Amino acid sequence: MRLINTQQKILIVGLGLLGGSYAKALSKKGFHISAITLDQYSIDFALDKGWIEKGSAFVDTDLLSDADIVVFALYPTIFIDWIQKNQHLLKSGSIITDVTGIKGSVVYTIQDMLRPDVEFIAAHPMAGREVSGVENSDDCIFHNANYIVTPTDKNTPEAIQLCRDLGVILGFSRISTLSPDEHDKIIAFVSQLTHCIAVSLMTCQKTEHLEDYTGDSFRDLTRIARLNDEMWSELFLMNKEPLLQQMKLFEDELTRLRKMLQSDDREGLREMMRYSTARRALFDKKL
Amino acid sequence: MRLINTQQKILIVGLGLLGGSYAKALSKKGFHISAITLDQYSIDFALDKGWIEKGSAFVDTDLLSDADIVVFALYPTIFIDWIQKNQHLLKSGSIITDVTGIKGSVVYTIQDMLRPDVEFIAAHPMAGREVSGVENSDDCIFHNANYIVTPTDKNTPEAIQLCRDLGVILGFSRISTLSPDEHDKIIAFVSQLTHCIAVSLMTCQKTEHLEDYTGDSFRDLTRIARLNDEMWSELFLMNKEPLLQQMKLFEDELTRLRKMLQSDDREGLREMMRYSTARRALFDKKL
Repeated sequence: MRLINTQQKILIVGLGLLGGSYAKALSKKGFHISAITLDQYSIDFALDKGWIEKGSAFVDTDLLSDADIVVFALYPTIFIDWIQKNQHLLKSGSIITDVTGIKGSVVYTIQDMLRPDVEFIAAHPMAGREVSGVENSDDCIFHNANYIVTPTDKNTPEAIQLCRDLGVILGFSRISTLSPDEHDKIIAFVSQLTHCIAVSLMTCQKTEHLEDYTGDSFRDLTRIARLNDEMWSELFLMNKEPLLQQMKLFEDELTRLRKMLQSDDREGLREMMRYSTARRALFDKKL
Repeated sequence: MRLINTQQKILIVGLGLLGGSYAKALSKKGFHISAITLDQYSIDFALDKGWIEKGSAFVDTDLLSDADIVVFALYPTIFIDWIQKNQHLLKSGSIITDVTGIKGSVVYTIQDMLRPDVEFIAAHPMAGREVSGVENSDDCIFHNANYIVTPTDKNTPEAIQLCRDLGVILGFSRISTLSPDEHDKIIAFVSQLTHCIAVSLMTCQKTEHLEDYTGDSFRDLTRIARLNDEMWSELFLMNKEPLLQQMKLFEDELTRLRKMLQSDDREGLREMMRYSTARRALFDKKL
């Protein structure tokens, strides 16, 4: 039995790319969605599309006191500030969740300060685009993507289940559960390190007209080098230690490869490539 | 006026993924194609598909003495060995070309040893797949891809033009000309360095079930981590100095990013990300 149903009113705080995609996906499934965001333009856009029924460009007490589930789709620091200032307006018994890409420095902070009659169950929908804003929202980004729920010992089994159900309804193809710390370590590797690499590859030389000589490899490795600098610098800095550890692992491995090349160690290079090929094959099977 | 026409007989030596894709693309356009390769299976496969009219699993003197244009789709060292052993069998006045991914250590060597009545004009079709063999050949890989001709002062304008025409007929969307040394420097960066990065990212940690928590970023950055170890180790080692130089540029840039992270230099990180975003945008425009 699902703990989530279309009778529950869902409020989305922050109508950017992800908030808008949540609104689009959930309204399609018959949920009653409202939204609070900073600018009236985004509210009007979502109202016009039929993704939300009500919306406000200020902290509307009626919308808040009416919401059974609140999804925060804000930058991490703004989310924490918002809870500090406005949590007294949340409905008693409501469940709040989020979309934040880092967990350790957000989940414990929020859970420690939150009213006892409201429960925060965190989630990370691993989906995005290279463009931002509600006008680029698209619920297709959830298909074939992963959704990670990150409960702590402060969470109830019911809220954890409700949060997993939300991922299913949004259309994610794989729902998993990790502790906030496990999550941050894995994300530092699969998401943040890859962005560090893409950015460095894009900026490490100033050659002009590189695009005329580029194959798919370089395009693939730098697709994510086009990114929102405000959000990503915040994600990097709020997950600094795990990210530095993963960067070190990668840098050491690249150095190992470089030394094999320097010493003409053909067999060493081939062995490393065979291992890489075998590991990468696991990913294709999962698609 | 094109210097290439369907009256000229084209022989492909080496029917792997690329040789097979050349045969497929050229036969579709009405050219008479024959092939020499090591195994009878690949010959039979291409004959059966109608990509070649004749083929041989040994060095067939009739096919060689009949060919106006010979395309060598072999590994670099095998290509050089082949020319050493068999160049006396080439038709006088014929033009030979190749598909080799590195140029400096191949082009000068071949041109220096080649008979004066045969001309070698080198080219690099920047296309490939993560799988190999004639059975995976597909001329679609040439669409939206780059084709680089790398003449030296030993080449005639006619042969250079013929080689460029071949790229057009194969269906490449951009044909350019670079010296062998310029080519190797650019390829070290856009192709070989990216493969070093993808392999290192794939092998730097042994975490299992990583694929369950992976977004598109990690998939994109490691797609090319599945590679032919024999070919790629050879390409790396034969382009060692340019590749080591490009690796150093990248490693220094990643270190710069890491130091900004360590010192909480948010503005430095954002500046780097903005530059990366602006540079990457140029690539999208070209698509």
